[in-house]
Amino acid sequence: MRLSRYFLPVLKETPSEAQIVSHRLMLRAGMIKQASAGIYSWLPLGYKILRKIEAIVHEEQGRAGHIPMLMPTLQSADLWRESGRYDAYGPEMLRIRDRHERDMLFGPTNEEMITDIFRCHVSSYRDLPMTLYHIQWKFRDERRPRFGVMRGREFLMKDGYNFDLTREDALHAYNRHLVSYLRTYERMGLQAIPMRADSGPIGGDDTHEFLVLAETGESEVFYDSEITDLKFGDRKIDYDSHDECRAVLEEFTSRYARTDETHDPELFAKVPEDRQRQARGIEVGQIFYFGTKYSEAMGANVVDPDGNRVPVHMGSHGIGVSRLVGAIIEASHDDKGIIWPEGVTPFHAGIVNLKQGDEEADAACQALYDSLVTMGLEPLYDDRDERAGAKFATMDLIGLPWRITVGPRGLKNGVVELTCRRTGESEEMPPEQAVTRIGQIYARKV
Amino acid sequence: MRLSRYFLPVLKETPSEAQIVSHRLMLRAGMIKQASAGIYSWLPLGYKILRKIEAIVHEEQGRAGHIPMLMPTLQSADLWRESGRYDAYGPEMLRIRDRHERDMLFGPTNEEMITDIFRCHVSSYRDLPMTLYHIQWKFRDERRPRFGVMRGREFLMKDGYNFDLTREDALHAYNRHLVSYLRTYERMGLQAIPMRADSGPIGGDDTHEFLVLAETGESEVFYDSEITDLKFGDRKIDYDSHDECRAVLEEFTSRYARTDETHDPELFAKVPEDRQRQARGIEVGQIFYFGTKYSEAMGANVVDPDGNRVPVHMGSHGIGVSRLVGAIIEASHDDKGIIWPEGVTPFHAGIVNLKQGDEEADAACQALYDSLVTMGLEPLYDDRDERAGAKFATMDLIGLPWRITVGPRGLKNGVVELTCRRTGESEEMPPEQAVTRIGQIYARKV
Repeated sequence: MRLSRYFLPVLKETPSEAQIVSHRLMLRAGMIKQASAGIYSWLPLGYKILRKIEAIVHEEQGRAGHIPMLMPTLQSADLWRESGRYDAYGPEMLRIRDRHERDMLFGPTNEEMITDIFRCHVSSYRDLPMTLYHIQWKFRDERRPRFGVMRGREFLMKDGYNFDLTREDALHAYNRHLVSYLRTYERMGLQAIPMRADSGPIGGDDTHEFLVLAETGESEVFYDSEITDLKFGDRKIDYDSHDECRAVLEEFTSRYARTDETHDPELFAKVPEDRQRQARGIEVGQIFYFGTKYSEAMGANVVDPDGNRVPVHMGSHGIGVSRLVGAIIEASHDDKGIIWPEGVTPFHAGIVNLKQGDEEADAACQALYDSLVTMGLEPLYDDRDERAGAKFATMDLIGLPWRITVGPRGLKNGVVELTCRRTGESEEMPPEQAVTRIGQIYARKV
Repeated sequence: MRLSRYFLPVLKETPSEAQIVSHRLMLRAGMIKQASAGIYSWLPLGYKILRKIEAIVHEEQGRAGHIPMLMPTLQSADLWRESGRYDAYGPEMLRIRDRHERDMLFGPTNEEMITDIFRCHVSSYRDLPMTLYHIQWKFRDERRPRFGVMRGREFLMKDGYNFDLTREDALHAYNRHLVSYLRTYERMGLQAIPMRADSGPIGGDDTHEFLVLAETGESEVFYDSEITDLKFGDRKIDYDSHDECRAVLEEFTSRYARTDETHDPELFAKVPEDRQRQARGIEVGQIFYFGTKYSEAMGANVVDPDGNRVPVHMGSHGIGVSRLVGAIIEASHDDKGIIWPEGVTPFHAGIVNLKQGDEEADAACQALYDSLVTMGLEPLYDDRDERAGAKFATMDLIGLPWRITVGPRGLKNGVVELTCRRTGESEEMPPEQAVTRIGQIYARKV
C-alpha cells in the first residue's frame, strides 16, 4: 500500500478522553474512531489488525478440528426465557423491540442459540463429538464503557461450543481448547496465562481465564513466577489425544495462578516466597465446562449407544478478538508508539523514502516494494512529500516491526537502512539483502 | 473435510414454509437455520459460501483501489437527525434505546457515519480521491420477511463510499464501481445486468441496479437481448483511467435495460422487436452518485486548490453479500439440488467412497484427499457408512461442481469416476488423472 492512497488519519495530539495507553495509541495511530459511547469504527489500519487476529483464531480453531459457522447478532428473547437467563441477565443485555412488538436482544453470548441449533439437528451420539464456533459482534451495555476497545459495548468475540456424550469427552474438549488457545495467543506474540476463574453468568464449575500481564490490567492476579517460563512453542500435538491435551493442561495449570476472584491466600502462601508474584492482568479469553446446564433446560438430548436419551455435556470457550487489539498494544509499546509482534502486524515492513521525487530514490523504493510484494508480503510505502522526521514518527507510532529507509546518500553507496522497531537498531545493507532478511523473518514466523 | 467430522444437517423433507427454490435448497442442504423471522444462523456449509463471496468482494474492491474498514452495527440516532433521515426513514429502521435512554439504531446503511468519519479527519483536496468500504451486518425491519436470505431482516452487505473533489471525479468513481461490480459478479458465475434504477431513500440522480435474471426475481425487468451477450471476461483495466472505465460503462449501459420502476414503454418500443425482452430479476447490487447531499447537510468540506472550502462529492455503492448466496442458487440449480459455480463452491470436489471400510477403497480415497489438499484445494470426503444412493443424493443436493466416486470394482481396473454436477456426465480415469483434471479446472478459474 502506498500511504498517499491510504486513509491513515494519525493524530498529533494525545486525545484527552483516553485513559490507558492502548486507547491513546489506537486513536493517535488512526486505528479507530469512536462512533458513540463504547462503540467504535475500525479505520483501515485498525481493521487490518482485527482481520489478522481473526485469521489466526480461525486457523487455530481449524487445526483443533472445530467447525466455523455464524450466528446472527440479534436473538429472540424466547430462547433466553427457556434457559431462564432472560430475566437473570442484568441491564448489560441490550433489549430491543421490533416493529411487531416482539422482544429481541443483541446477543452478549450464544449458549441458548447454539443449543437450539443442536437440538433441532442432532439426535444421536454418532454425531458427537462436535465443536462449533463463530466470530461475531456482541453487545454488552456497559454502564460506563471506557478504555477504548478494551471495555467497549459492541465487541468482536470468538465463541465456541462443544457437545459431547460424556463428562470425560467434554473435559477433553475443555483441555483441547486450552491447548489451542495457548497456541493462538503465542502466535499473536502474547503470553496469556491460564488462571483458575469464576464462572459468572455462564455457569459451571470448571473454568479458566487467560490473562496477559500488563500494568493497566483490570484484574489483580497472583501467580507462581515459574509459570512465566512456560512456552507452548512449536510442539506438535494430536488434538484427538486425550492424554496429550491433558498433559498440556496439567503442565500449564499445576502452578498457582489465580485472579482476585478466586485467590486463596493460604494456598498462595505455600508457593516459595521468592516465586510469589502479584501483578495485574488483562483477560483475553475464557473456557468453561458447564455439563448439562443448558442441554437439560432446553432439551438437547442424544440417544446413547444403549438407546437411552441423555442430555449432552457442553462447554463454551471465548476469545475477545477486538479486545486483543488493545491487549497486544498494552503489552507491546514504547514512548514512540505501538510495536506490533510480527504475527499480527498490519504491514510487514515500512518503506520510507527520504527524498520523494528524487528519481533514484523513487525507483529504489518502488523496486523494494515490488520485491516484497512478490514474496507475498505487504509493505507500506510512505511516498508522501513529507520531511523525514514526520515519516519516521508516523512509522514509529503505527508500529510496523521493520522499516527500510531509502535516501539518495545511501543509494550512492549502494545501501539502504533496515531498522528494527523493537530494538531501534539500524543496519545498512544493499536493498536486495534487506528484502531477503525480511523474507526470512516472516518465513520463520508463519 | 471429512463428512463424519462435519456438521451438515441435510433435510430429507422440503420445508413447507419456504416458497422459493433457494430458500428450500438452503434449508435442505443444511446451509441455514432460521433463528427468528428474517434472521438466520449460517450453518457451516452456508457460512463457507458466505465467506467465499465475501473474499471475492474484498479482492475486487482491493483491485479497484478501495480501502477496507469496518463500521459498527449500532449507530447513534443523532447522526441521522443531522441528515434528516432519522424521521424520514420508516418502520424498516430498527430503533433501539440503550440503558441510558439514548436513541440508537441498527444501521440499515452508513452514509451518515462515513460522512462523519470523513469530516473529522479529512480537510484537504490532497487526500482525495478516496473510497472506503466495509462489509457488515445490517438490519431492515421488513414488515413481512420472506424468501430466506433473499429478503431477510439481518443481512450482510458491502457498502462503499467515494469522496471526490469534483462531480467529474465522483462520476469516475461511479464508473469504476460499475466495472469492479461486473468483475465481481462474473467471478461468482453470475451475469448481473446494470439497469437504470430509482434512487429511493439514498437520494441522487445517477443510479444503476445490478440484476440477475431469475424467474423468482422480485423485479420485473425490460431489456434489449443484446445485453446478455456482453461479457466483461478477463480484460485488463486501469481503474485510474477515466476513459477506460467510462468506456465500460457505456458498453454495458447503452442498451435498454430497466426495472419496472424506471421502465419507459416509448423508449423500449424503439428496441427492435425481436430483441425486446421482459423477464424477472433479482437485485444484487446498486451504485449511486448523489453529489453533495450528505456533505452539505453534515458539513463535510475540503479546501480546494484555490483555497475555497467546498463540500465533497459523494456516492455510495452496495453489494448484497448474504442475498447473493440465494441469488446464485436461484440462477444455478436443478431438480436434485444446488449447482455451485466453481468460483464460490464451498468445497472444490466431493469424494464418495462406495464401500467405506474396504481397505483399498479407503486408502484410495485418502490418497485422493491428500493429493487435492496438497494442490491447495479443499475436498469434502463422504466417509460415512452409508449407501451409495444416499451419498450421491447428498452430494447432488449440496451442489459441489465435481465428484470423484471410488469403489472396489473401479479400483480393480485402476480407475475412479469423475462426475460433473452441471452436466451429469461421468468419465472413468486413473485417480491421478482425476486429481490433475480438477487442479486444471480451478487453476483456470482462480
